[in-house]
Amino acid sequence: MAVIKLDRMTDSNRVKKSFNQQGLMKTLGASLESVENGSVTITASFHESLTQQHGYFHAGVLTSLADSACGYAALSALPDDYEVLTVEFKINFLKPAKGSKLIAAGQVIQSGKTLTVCEGTVYNETRDKILAKMTATIIAVKSEQ
Amino acid sequence: MAVIKLDRMTDSNRVKKSFNQQGLMKTLGASLESVENGSVTITASFHESLTQQHGYFHAGVLTSLADSACGYAALSALPDDYEVLTVEFKINFLKPAKGSKLIAAGQVIQSGKTLTVCEGTVYNETRDKILAKMTATIIAVKSEQ
Amino acid sequence: MAVIKLDRMTDSNRVKKSFNQQGLMKTLGASLESVENGSVTITASFHESLTQQHGYFHAGVLTSLADSACGYAALSALPDDYEVLTVEFKINFLKPAKGSKLIAAGQVIQSGKTLTVCEGTVYNETRDKILAKMTATIIAVKSEQ
Amino acid sequence: MAVIKLDRMTDSNRVKKSFNQQGLMKTLGASLESVENGSVTITASFHESLTQQHGYFHAGVLTSLADSACGYAALSALPDDYEVLTVEFKINFLKPAKGSKLIAAGQVIQSGKTLTVCEGTVYNETRDKILAKMTATIIAVKSEQ
Repeated sequence: MAVIKLDRMTDSNRVKKSFNQQGLMKTLGASLESVENGSVTITASFHESLTQQHGYFHAGVLTSLADSACGYAALSALPDDYEVLTVEFKINFLKPAKGSKLIAAGQVIQSGKTLTVCEGTVYNETRDKILAKMTATIIAVKSEQ
Repeated sequence: MAVIKLDRMTDSNRVKKSFNQQGLMKTLGASLESVENGSVTITASFHESLTQQHGYFHAGVLTSLADSACGYAALSALPDDYEVLTVEFKINFLKPAKGSKLIAAGQVIQSGKTLTVCEGTVYNETRDKILAKMTATIIAVKSEQ
Repeated sequence: MAVIKLDRMTDSNRVKKSFNQQGLMKTLGASLESVENGSVTITASFHESLTQQHGYFHAGVLTSLADSACGYAALSALPDDYEVLTVEFKINFLKPAKGSKLIAAGQVIQSGKTLTVCEGTVYNETRDKILAKMTATIIAVKSEQ
Repeated sequence: MAVIKLDRMTDSNRVKKSFNQQGLMKTLGASLESVENGSVTITASFHESLTQQHGYFHAGVLTSLADSACGYAALSALPDDYEVLTVEFKINFLKPAKGSKLIAAGQVIQSGKTLTVCEGTVYNETRDKILAKMTATIIAVKSEQ
């Protein structure tokens, strides 16, 4: 399998700072678990404030975590004066999102000057089940400041 | 354009009851605005608990609202002894999600025995801008009770 | 519904010229039916060289026509010194693609400097059935010559 | 990573027979390279009848090969009295599809009674570049005969 080569070291502080500014991540009780070059993991524990009608995690929670993980994976591979916006994504829900915790991993699979393509994978708490699989297209935009 | 013909009257109470069981909709401050046969609208007002890093609505909020709107649009067109699960969706973010309110409309575009395909559209508060466009595949499952 | 405003007149000859350079369109027996500003229609008649295993049009044919229609819809709305590339698309197959002819319509739904988002709709020969629905993201690139 | 466990041996003849009935695969000059349980590879050599306007492989060719590879990967994991139909797919084009040959690999990533989810990967001739990445949802239908 082709491996992504990234030209620069990741400044994980940049990702952390941006993550902490996302009100929604706080609302979902999400934690930024790891930031590597082109790879970011975000987790959230089960709470009834995150449910759909059967008491499982709502698809929107899996999607929100995977979207942020993909966006920050892209950001981690970009120069410091760039920010990211999600252009689009598609997500398949593979198994019922039961369990005590979600682990959402975002991974750059194609790194371009303008567009970055990432894969997002949402696992259960023991990482032995893939609950959902995302492909996301992210655009790099020059920071305004 | 082909119009969807639905064989049955919608029981909007069924949708309301299920909506009220979704912890996430409460967490996002979402309201079920309308339920017609094959068409559902959900709204949410701006709050800083719903933001991404620039202070706009997080993509995950638009997606969560659109997902629920699509799922309930599908449910509104199904017999009473069926429930719905989201198989997958894809969403394009067309404009920055600024503003005071999101209006997410779900609409059945293809109604089958097993699968229903819906379009989700997320508008700004005055409905003059389309912020995001979703296509969702929903599966009908027999209720257990 | 928000209407797309385009700043310029379409040079349909540019689209025709590019279409005629696509070997695959010739192979599929496809015709460029109409080119308007932000809207393009491509058709193909049934032939057994275009089939899947049950003798209907192959999903790949619907997709190829819709992709070209979306790409040219985007191109028709761009300045003369730009070309287009498909970043990604998603397509739902709504009905069996039986019949004597496919009509694929591509329509710009969001026009940006770098990215254009288009909707593709594939109809049967009488346009009373929607066989497939596509959403495509197209990138504008400066022509090299 | 979670591994797909499949309960039955693949009857590769069933896949071959169906593949040979697809007129489009013949038209594209495609070959069925391998059929394993939940995994299928299809290839096609470059020919100017398969091009877009710059003389590379048309996105529709990559998509057609990946769609058939995903569909047959799903079929290879289903009981003998079932057939498959593509519900929907999404594909990202990661690199220009230059080169002498396309290798499209379809792989089951989630196997259900009704729905199968597959990943499609399109490689260049030396398999050192991923040109495109697909996620496809396939539905199993009882054979009529």
